[in-house]
Amino acid sequence: MTQRTIEFFWDAASPYTYLAATQIEALAQRCGCVLQWRPFVLGKAFEATGNRAPAQIPAKGKYLFKDLRLWAKHYGVPLFFPRVFPVNSLTAGRIGCALPPEQVGRWAQAVMTAYWTRDADISQAEVLKGVADAAGFDGAALLAAAQEQPAKDLLRANTEEAVERGVFGAPTFFVGEQMFWGNDRLVLLEDYLNGKLAA
Amino acid sequence: MTQRTIEFFWDAASPYTYLAATQIEALAQRCGCVLQWRPFVLGKAFEATGNRAPAQIPAKGKYLFKDLRLWAKHYGVPLFFPRVFPVNSLTAGRIGCALPPEQVGRWAQAVMTAYWTRDADISQAEVLKGVADAAGFDGAALLAAAQEQPAKDLLRANTEEAVERGVFGAPTFFVGEQMFWGNDRLVLLEDYLNGKLAA
Repeated sequence: MTQRTIEFFWDAASPYTYLAATQIEALAQRCGCVLQWRPFVLGKAFEATGNRAPAQIPAKGKYLFKDLRLWAKHYGVPLFFPRVFPVNSLTAGRIGCALPPEQVGRWAQAVMTAYWTRDADISQAEVLKGVADAAGFDGAALLAAAQEQPAKDLLRANTEEAVERGVFGAPTFFVGEQMFWGNDRLVLLEDYLNGKLAA
Repeated sequence: MTQRTIEFFWDAASPYTYLAATQIEALAQRCGCVLQWRPFVLGKAFEATGNRAPAQIPAKGKYLFKDLRLWAKHYGVPLFFPRVFPVNSLTAGRIGCALPPEQVGRWAQAVMTAYWTRDADISQAEVLKGVADAAGFDGAALLAAAQEQPAKDLLRANTEEAVERGVFGAPTFFVGEQMFWGNDRLVLLEDYLNGKLAA
C-alpha cells in the first residue's frame, strides 16, 4: 500500500500555522503519512479570495491574542507574540522553495520557532541567515538561492495552486482533495486519516 | 464551593452553534458546571463588529459545507443543510427570551434540531409553534409572549451585552470573562474548566 501524503500549506507569518506545525509531524507519524511542506503566500490567498486576516476585525484581533495563548498552553508549547506583526515572510517562503522537498520541514520549523517564540524579525535577511545557520543550513547560500527565479516562481506557483484548490487561509492541509483549514481542524484531519469520517 | 457557570450565547441560525449545542450539555455535566443559555442575534453582532458570516467569502462558504459534514460525522450527530439559509431566527430567539431560564436550553435544542436536521423553516410562526408544541411547550402562548416587549427587550439586551463583552461570532461561551469562540474551542473550554490552562 502506498503511503498517503498530507500536504501542508504554510506561511511563517501565521500564528495558527505555527501552532499546527508543533503538532503535525507527530500526527503524520501516528497516521503513517508522508508530510509535504508547501510554502505559500497567505496574503495573496487573502487577496485572491476576499478573505481577511482575523486581526483586521478589532474584536476578533483582541480575542486572537488570548486564543493563541490558550492553544499554546493546551499543546504545552512556547508562544511569544512578536513585536513585528504582521511580518513580511516572503523571503522565508522563498527559502523554503529553494530547498529540496525533504528539507523544507526543518526550515519551516526553524523559521516559525524563531518568529513565534523568540521574537526574531524574519523579514530581515540577516536574521534569516542566522536562523538557517543555526538549523544546520548554509544561510548565505540559501539567501542567495531565494533570490533566484526558480524559488520565486515556485512560491508563486504554490500560492496559485493553493487558491485554485480552495485555500483561503492558513494553515491548510490536503489529503488528496479533501481540505482541512485551521489548526483547530487537526482533530478532523486525524479522524479522516483513521477512516472515522467515511461517508 | 459554588458551581461555575458556562454562559452560552446562541443563535439558531448558526450551524456551528447547532454542532456545539449537541456537545455542550455533556461537557457542562463532566465539568460540574451550570449551563446558561443566552439567546442573541448573531447578525447584529456581525454588524456591530464588522465581522462577516463565513459563507460571505465564496471560498470559505464552499469549505463550510464540507467542514460541517465532517464535524457532524466526528460527533456522530445528524446534519441536514437547510434549504432556507440564512434564516431569520429573530422569533426563535425571542421565544427563548420569553421562557424561564431553566427552560431555554430545551427550546434551543428543539429549534436547532428542527432547523439543522429536519429542514424546518424556523422563520415561520406556524413552524415554530409546531416545534414548541412537540417539545412540550404551549406553542401558541410562547409565540404570543415572543411578540411582547419584555422578550424583545431581553433579546436586544443580550445582544448588546454580548458585543460589549467581545462577542463577534457564534457560538460564544463565557466562564466569567474568559471567552471561547466557536464549536472548535470546546476542547479549550473543557481544558480551562479542568484547570489545565492556568497561567
